[in-house]
Order: sequence, then C-alpha cells, then structure tokens
Amino acid sequence: MKIELLENERIDDLQYKGLKIIQKTKGFCFGVDAVLLASFADVKRNDRVADLGTGTGIISILLAGKTQAKSLSGLEIQQEMAEMAGRSVLLNDLQDRVRIICGDIKKSHEFFAPSSIDVAVSNPPYMNKGGGLVNPDDTKAISRHEIMCTLEDVIAAGSRMLVPGGQLAMVHRPERLVDIACLMRNYGIEPKYIRFVHPSPYKRANLILIKGTRGGRPQLKMMEPLYIYDETGEYSREINEIYCRDEVKK
Amino acid sequence: MKIELLENERIDDLQYKGLKIIQKTKGFCFGVDAVLLASFADVKRNDRVADLGTGTGIISILLAGKTQAKSLSGLEIQQEMAEMAGRSVLLNDLQDRVRIICGDIKKSHEFFAPSSIDVAVSNPPYMNKGGGLVNPDDTKAISRHEIMCTLEDVIAAGSRMLVPGGQLAMVHRPERLVDIACLMRNYGIEPKYIRFVHPSPYKRANLILIKGTRGGRPQLKMMEPLYIYDETGEYSREINEIYCRDEVKK
Repeated sequence: MKIELLENERIDDLQYKGLKIIQKTKGFCFGVDAVLLASFADVKRNDRVADLGTGTGIISILLAGKTQAKSLSGLEIQQEMAEMAGRSVLLNDLQDRVRIICGDIKKSHEFFAPSSIDVAVSNPPYMNKGGGLVNPDDTKAISRHEIMCTLEDVIAAGSRMLVPGGQLAMVHRPERLVDIACLMRNYGIEPKYIRFVHPSPYKRANLILIKGTRGGRPQLKMMEPLYIYDETGEYSREINEIYCRDEVKK
Repeated sequence: MKIELLENERIDDLQYKGLKIIQKTKGFCFGVDAVLLASFADVKRNDRVADLGTGTGIISILLAGKTQAKSLSGLEIQQEMAEMAGRSVLLNDLQDRVRIICGDIKKSHEFFAPSSIDVAVSNPPYMNKGGGLVNPDDTKAISRHEIMCTLEDVIAAGSRMLVPGGQLAMVHRPERLVDIACLMRNYGIEPKYIRFVHPSPYKRANLILIKGTRGGRPQLKMMEPLYIYDETGEYSREINEIYCRDEVKK
C-alpha cells in the first residue's frame, strides 16, 4: 500500500522486523523511553492492549511486532498526530490488530469498556503543568507537558479499563515516583515492579519503568538497574538486545 | 569511666574518632544500613535529633560523633537493649548530648513534645508482621520484624514530633518503597531524596535511603546510586569514605 507523506514528515526505519514509522521532521519524535517501555510491558498472546497517549504510535507498533497481542488500541488527543499514527499503522500493514483512536484520555470510557483491557501502557507527558512558558498549540509541548492530561488522568483511565489482574506499565521521570506510586495505589493499581534506567553505572537514574497490577497485593519487586551505556561508553549489552535482537515474547 | 559488661556482651571499636559500642555476642548487631543512615541524614549544628528504635544506640552515637547536634534521643522499646545502649553512651562519655529512652514508638508523645525535633532518623524492622515463625521474645526478631511497631507507627511518630520543615530520614528495603512513599505523604512528610544502595553496579538495589520533609512540597530528587563494592570487588570509594574518612558535617 502506498502511504502519502505530508510536508515535514519522514519515514524512519525501526530496524526491527522491517517496522517503520512516520515522524515529523520538526515535531516530537519518539525516544528511547518508548522503546524501553515496549520491551518492559508484559504482553501475552491474545492480550488486548491500550496505549494511552500513543503519539506517533511507536509503542503500539513495536508491541504489534514484538508480541502476539490480539488487539492494540492507541489513544491520542492530537488530531494530526493520531492521523499520522494511523498512516504508520497502514504503512506496516497492521490495521487488523492496531487501531488509532483520536480522543481524550479523560474520556477514555467513551472508547474502552470497563474491564476490557489486559495491558495498558503509557509514556505520558513528563512535565508538570508549569507556568506560562508553554505554547499550548505546540505538538511538542502537548507531548511533553501535562497540558491535555495529567498523570492522575492516565492512571485513572488505566484503572477503569483494566481487567482485575490486568497490568498498567508506564515510563516516567524518577522525580514523579512518589506521585506515581501513591496515585496507582489510590486507583487500585498496586505497583509490583520498578526498574530504574541510568545513563551508565554510577550515574543517577533519569527514567523509571513501573508496572502495577489492578487489585494486586502489596509486594514491590525492585529490578536490576538498566544502563544505557556501560563503563566503556558503549551501548550496554541489554540496550543492544532491546534495539536489535529482541525475540518475540511468548 | 569504667563501664560494666554483662555476660554475652562485647565492646566493638567503631573505628571512627575512637567511638565504641557494646553489642551482644549472640544478639542483633548493627549493620551497614545503620552506618549509611547516619551518613545520609542531614543533621545541622544545634539540631535536636530523635532516633526511633535505636537498638544498640549505634545511629545516635555515630551522629553524636559526626555532627554538632545539640541533643540526640534514642528511643528503644526493648529494656535490655535500651540499658545496653545507655552504657554505650557512658562508654563514649556522650551522656551530655545523647540520652537513651526505654519506651514505645507508639507512645512517643509521652517522650517528645509535638514539633520539638529537627531530624528524626529510623532504621526500623524491615520484615512485615508475618506468620507464626517468629519468637516474639527474641531480641533479634523484635529488631527485624514488625512485632512491636509497624512502618506506619514510625512515620506517624516522626510526623508528630518534627518541626515544620523538619526531616525524617529512614533506611529500609526497596520492597517497602511504595508503602514508605504513601505513608509519608499521608502523614504530611513529603519524600524529597531517595538513594538506592546496591551491592555493586549491575546488581539490584537491596537498601533504600529516603529523606522526607514535614510539610515539604512534592519534588523528589533521585540521588546517585550507592554501591557497596565496585566492579573490582573492592569496597567502593564512597563506602571507604563513609567508614573511615567521613569529615564532621558542618
């Protein structure tokens, strides 16, 4: 299928099973955080997956390639991002399993029935709603700042749509760890696994990966740290595996 | 002053400014966690410090040596431990600044007025109240399991006695991170600094150091990881500094 590109768009090769993605040449591009989250979430065969704030569609497309999920639904509030993500789905011929929905996480009940999702993933905006420095029309700003949705909106939506025992997997900044932990617990999602991502050993963590279970009992498991680079300045073995040699999860 | 030792007690040299401590030859002995916490807490000149569950008195005695705190009060529920800690205070001639109180953290209001403490520290029992495997008369068990007090008791007591802006510093297991974060916030102590302690790089963290501020605004700072051993299997530079060359904090 021939997919049209708009002005200021390009096709990037994900270097994984031939998957590709359309991104804006001057807009928000996906980062290592999205790739790490797609590898961190526990998606099993026939799972129904929701991606809250899908942006370019990167996590839904990677998970479609990596897993045997039955369906993947990417929710995105920005119309031009959602439309672009939809073309990336077509580009990869994934339209039977991946659908992109243009809609508001705060109104996710309009798109997802209660207890209808096995795994919800989200790479939400990291920045707290701040002062007046942010242009609310800017797609980069909407992807990075809590303009259109807050952390609480994402966790509340996840809690509502997940089946009991279902998983919410997120990537965020460590500065929000207390907020994430308390909000998850308040919304009935018990944090079960935490993994810190460090630029390299001895450096402080700059990302956190967290998985919670709806209705789980309190028992947090701290996972090994994930280093982007090793002591020699090369990509770590694990990053190489995630980017190039990740096997299809069973 | 000549200090009497009971049967099954010994004097250990803390290898720091000539400080010594009495410990039981077959009972609970202080560990690296207590030493790390004493180095982690921010005790300033003239601060009033409370050590909740002082055990052997190790943290109060180390902080008396390391800092210019005005007073340090170690609260310990086990009478024989409190009595032994009191003799360690005398052994170090610290009785003008350090007092050991035999009492219950749940009744800390009997010993500490509200808003009377600048820094509260605690190395509480790590284990959840479990099944019937624990002998409640065992001093080791009381030091390790939540028999006499829970995590919530410690945080509630700290919150009550701290001045606004005062600090609660704790060491605990990472598995309890969500509990600590949510309880602190529920009791008006905002977690501000978290530091994970790893046996060595690439290994998962097995201790967490956390500092919260009474009435602080939400803004967590993730600190550099602390490694006990470096890649070569030697004590890390930082551990050597904490154990041997720690300067008096200003």
